[in-house]
Amino acid sequence: MSFINEDFMLTTKTAKKLFYDYAKDLPIIDYHCHLVPEKIANNYQFKNVADLMLGGDHYKWRQMRTLGVDEKYTTGDATDYEKWEKWAETLPMAIGNPLFHWTQLELKRYFDVDEILTPDTAKAVWDKCNARLETEDYRAKGLIEMSGVEALCTTDDPADDLIYHKQIRESGFKTKVLPTMRPDKAVEIGKETFLPYIEAIGVKDYDSLKKWLVEKIAFFNSMGCKLSDHALEYVPFKTGDAKAVFEKRLNGGEITRDEEEIYKTDILSLCASEYVKLGWTMQLHIGALRNNNTRMYNILGADVGFDSINDLCIAEKLSGFLNNLELKEILPKTILYVLNPKDNYVIGTMLGNFQKGPYRGKIQFGSGWWFNDQRDGMREQMKALANLGLLSTFVGMLTDSRSFISYTRHEYFRRIMCSLIGEWVEAGEYPCDMKLLKKIVEGISYYNAKEYLEL
Amino acid sequence: MSFINEDFMLTTKTAKKLFYDYAKDLPIIDYHCHLVPEKIANNYQFKNVADLMLGGDHYKWRQMRTLGVDEKYTTGDATDYEKWEKWAETLPMAIGNPLFHWTQLELKRYFDVDEILTPDTAKAVWDKCNARLETEDYRAKGLIEMSGVEALCTTDDPADDLIYHKQIRESGFKTKVLPTMRPDKAVEIGKETFLPYIEAIGVKDYDSLKKWLVEKIAFFNSMGCKLSDHALEYVPFKTGDAKAVFEKRLNGGEITRDEEEIYKTDILSLCASEYVKLGWTMQLHIGALRNNNTRMYNILGADVGFDSINDLCIAEKLSGFLNNLELKEILPKTILYVLNPKDNYVIGTMLGNFQKGPYRGKIQFGSGWWFNDQRDGMREQMKALANLGLLSTFVGMLTDSRSFISYTRHEYFRRIMCSLIGEWVEAGEYPCDMKLLKKIVEGISYYNAKEYLEL
Amino acid sequence: MSFINEDFMLTTKTAKKLFYDYAKDLPIIDYHCHLVPEKIANNYQFKNVADLMLGGDHYKWRQMRTLGVDEKYTTGDATDYEKWEKWAETLPMAIGNPLFHWTQLELKRYFDVDEILTPDTAKAVWDKCNARLETEDYRAKGLIEMSGVEALCTTDDPADDLIYHKQIRESGFKTKVLPTMRPDKAVEIGKETFLPYIEAIGVKDYDSLKKWLVEKIAFFNSMGCKLSDHALEYVPFKTGDAKAVFEKRLNGGEITRDEEEIYKTDILSLCASEYVKLGWTMQLHIGALRNNNTRMYNILGADVGFDSINDLCIAEKLSGFLNNLELKEILPKTILYVLNPKDNYVIGTMLGNFQKGPYRGKIQFGSGWWFNDQRDGMREQMKALANLGLLSTFVGMLTDSRSFISYTRHEYFRRIMCSLIGEWVEAGEYPCDMKLLKKIVEGISYYNAKEYLEL
Repeated sequence: MSFINEDFMLTTKTAKKLFYDYAKDLPIIDYHCHLVPEKIANNYQFKNVADLMLGGDHYKWRQMRTLGVDEKYTTGDATDYEKWEKWAETLPMAIGNPLFHWTQLELKRYFDVDEILTPDTAKAVWDKCNARLETEDYRAKGLIEMSGVEALCTTDDPADDLIYHKQIRESGFKTKVLPTMRPDKAVEIGKETFLPYIEAIGVKDYDSLKKWLVEKIAFFNSMGCKLSDHALEYVPFKTGDAKAVFEKRLNGGEITRDEEEIYKTDILSLCASEYVKLGWTMQLHIGALRNNNTRMYNILGADVGFDSINDLCIAEKLSGFLNNLELKEILPKTILYVLNPKDNYVIGTMLGNFQKGPYRGKIQFGSGWWFNDQRDGMREQMKALANLGLLSTFVGMLTDSRSFISYTRHEYFRRIMCSLIGEWVEAGEYPCDMKLLKKIVEGISYYNAKEYLEL
Repeated sequence: MSFINEDFMLTTKTAKKLFYDYAKDLPIIDYHCHLVPEKIANNYQFKNVADLMLGGDHYKWRQMRTLGVDEKYTTGDATDYEKWEKWAETLPMAIGNPLFHWTQLELKRYFDVDEILTPDTAKAVWDKCNARLETEDYRAKGLIEMSGVEALCTTDDPADDLIYHKQIRESGFKTKVLPTMRPDKAVEIGKETFLPYIEAIGVKDYDSLKKWLVEKIAFFNSMGCKLSDHALEYVPFKTGDAKAVFEKRLNGGEITRDEEEIYKTDILSLCASEYVKLGWTMQLHIGALRNNNTRMYNILGADVGFDSINDLCIAEKLSGFLNNLELKEILPKTILYVLNPKDNYVIGTMLGNFQKGPYRGKIQFGSGWWFNDQRDGMREQMKALANLGLLSTFVGMLTDSRSFISYTRHEYFRRIMCSLIGEWVEAGEYPCDMKLLKKIVEGISYYNAKEYLEL
Repeated sequence: MSFINEDFMLTTKTAKKLFYDYAKDLPIIDYHCHLVPEKIANNYQFKNVADLMLGGDHYKWRQMRTLGVDEKYTTGDATDYEKWEKWAETLPMAIGNPLFHWTQLELKRYFDVDEILTPDTAKAVWDKCNARLETEDYRAKGLIEMSGVEALCTTDDPADDLIYHKQIRESGFKTKVLPTMRPDKAVEIGKETFLPYIEAIGVKDYDSLKKWLVEKIAFFNSMGCKLSDHALEYVPFKTGDAKAVFEKRLNGGEITRDEEEIYKTDILSLCASEYVKLGWTMQLHIGALRNNNTRMYNILGADVGFDSINDLCIAEKLSGFLNNLELKEILPKTILYVLNPKDNYVIGTMLGNFQKGPYRGKIQFGSGWWFNDQRDGMREQMKALANLGLLSTFVGMLTDSRSFISYTRHEYFRRIMCSLIGEWVEAGEYPCDMKLLKKIVEGISYYNAKEYLEL
């Protein structure tokens, strides 16, 4: 029997029924990912399975480094096959880690590989996968299509001209590929990227920046955008003279943390007010601590596996920020993602402060994210949500991924969700009423997101 | 078989034995609740099951809002039956939420309802419940009596004349109904309620306030009071000139957070010293973040479902506060409740710093509270207490409720406690010695609270 | 059947196989403990089982105080047998507490006691244990030898002359007994112990202190030292003029928290740079809140059971501290221990920021420590490590203990580790490949520590 088999991650009979009868065959709405639109537009062909599975995947690089693998085999100049061999050494050592499951699930679903990837099987798996990757079906678009993706939302800078989105749409590609606006570079006034960005977009003063953002939001909207996304080290909330802060920064002044908050509060509020008008959903990704290793940052730059989880106190400012929007009646539908599971109960109860009809679950507790999109992280997020709010209104899973074959994480999530619910049913904690269960499981798998995002 | 059946929440054979042989039939000591004494004194008759189960229950309102239900059906002017219908729509969607269990348990125990409350059964359940609510047995006093409540402690302002407590006692009501002093309005010097309160009680200076409090404590004591209760956003600890802070505030000055802490430390220490003399227990409820939604606060006021969980760092100040009392030998028996489960290990170990004979468990880790009085919250609190201290000395459950039928939460708690202990026994982690287990289970269910509170 | 039996803490068939075939018989490397070297050198003979099991064990004193036992029977002048009786009263009440398991495991393994220690069995157990303790085999060295300890690392002040370590080595004792340098007294510039310490070691200025430390590190190294240890209330990170801070303190000035951080950052960085040169491992124990009860501190001093868990935000400073060492290429192999489980995900991801070949797991997440070396604490630490990093590189358990018979905690740990892995295997979450499992289980039990510490 293959390691990935019918029962994989399904803990009860009820879980199996829920998964196979209701969850398994529903389409995927991947409402937040980091796919490169150009690769879709150009229907990218992968050089080999290392290009597909290791390229840019800093999750895997971290584990290889942990095992003592030299940088040469992660971001360095080793051959793709050498890198693949090092990954095959690492994987069996990743007991209890989601990468073990993800990798085996991807190998099974896309390449029909039953074996565990180890040094012994590395060559055979390499050959089998590469043979398929040479075919037309296994180019970028084919991989998305065979995954059953109804819609996917990329993550894009407001300055992006969305030319590839236009090309994809015009090509008649069946999956909806929609942009998501992520204006972090215009928000992060304290970072070294800020001034070059402001200069690049040709903005001279604060009013022009706001005007520019409003126009870009309108443009993204015309291109089908339904969500924004904001990565926040901390949730800002401070009112004050944002214009003065902006000008000070533009004139080369050093700004304080308080001033940074004033600016961010103002600019994010502006964004929120536009999102409300257009019916967009605002995503806040809270709590990453990035670029911790300056030595490696100086060599490789950002997003290469040196980020981790922060632990600030977030409740009061988050409450203040949302309350301020609610008071002004500019609080959009919002998804709050937290990276540190210590925040689960803060978020699970924060939602309830701002829920409001006619939306089902207007404020959402985002799915277990980044370091938490493993079984325990997902279960804890769902249990917190269920204990404190309404799990049944949850918009469910997203990949948050740069990979063209990470769609199996939706399957992984659905199996885990069905197991959690199945355990409750078999323990007599929820009635075994298949009509109700169908509605709940199908909702979390697919319909809630579709309805919520108005896709 | 009814959803609420013999095995409900009981996970092993041992759990069943422990529950049915030892826990089930013991009386209830509900040492902290928010029942309105006037309703007991007047033996209130409920208009219908919505009046009984939805009136003032902001837990339920939150979930209804989450489902997108309009405010009209929660705090608004819809009819009681319309509200009941909306609740019947919401409940089946509350999978994994304690409200599902609590509601079905209340319907079963008080009204012999076996069906799940859904839109399909809403009318039949409405009729069945209302028929009973028209009878004499189902008025306020009858509901308390049929619940097996030996004693209950309400929550009262020091300015309260306790007239209803007097009436209840004189009426010969079998359940002891005792007041609990909650002097929050005299403590919360930073809030807008402070000055009006000070004026209303006729206090002119700090010495008179302290004198007034001491007198009120003595008066409450004469009325049978055994506990105080304090709701604290954060635990204060700062020594300084409290009198000066009080005077500044009285003269209209704005006080800083540090000054607020100085005042609170002083006034709470005064209270503690009185509690010690009288053998009272001091309850500290730590960590709520209240009134997050100003828009709704402006419409509805406080305590209507817009409160959530805070995440401040609490260990150092809590330690300092308790240590200061211990040094002065004015640390009373104390129950520490925390709302954020991230604090469980801080509290579980803080207890041990101040335990002292001859009391069994002089400093208590309060039961999973508010958002945590669900299965996972209770289990985590009990596991933390067991791992770090002595679960066997735990004073157990309380309802913290405004409802006359929430006593089934004691049953819910006892089932969960027996399951936790039963799992340990069946896993061979504690000997199957029924003499020891009886003592532990009966203690946590009833005897520990009775002995600890000197009832 | 004895309470401690073959299946104790083993939850599946696979767990039993892993434990008995791979984990059980491997030697112990106890790389961090608090044994008193003098007692080993002199081959201390215990007066009785209370001397062995209760002397200095503030874990047990805390629980006895919690049960209401008078201080006379913990740190006071009661007879050893009276203390033993009080402990026998307390133990059966410690349901769910690791002390119950530890005590029964120690009684079984060292004294072949099958009974639960209760007031009824107290005398018989006392007699049985004492009879053995009179024999030569049950003196300090014999107890270590019969425990299968290959190496143990004590915890020593840099000023220590290590005379007992020398004696032990020269005595031909088979177990390697190595010193560990813990220079806390030279680091904690804010504490009252600092100035007397600096005076005692004859240091006049900052340069001499640094020179002295470097020399002591070299001396410890010549005595076989492989690790250092630092207890940190918080992780410091602030650069500045450490010399000026040191001089200010020496001249009787009061230093601020910021100045304290400047000094600590500098002195710890100096230590780290020496550790790197010598291939030592740096241990950081983070997050204890000590000496909370001043009344008892004034009577009994430190380390008598009045310490607990702090809850500061630690991520940013810890990252800054490690990053600063990494930038200067003086980051040694490091083990990070955190006391508050809320920090598990911060640490589990922090590791990955600084992993670097050729080391397997250069930065380690230390085992569940102090209040967390119980089943739940260990499981949560291992699950966090597995989810976020590579559990297979984990250096595993240590006792951190003052006791000569706490080696059974290694057995306890191995049973729990085998159960965790066994559950994954039986749930189909990791392949039942005994070759891989053997490597992983043996590694965590023994080989990883041996290789990592270069013993």
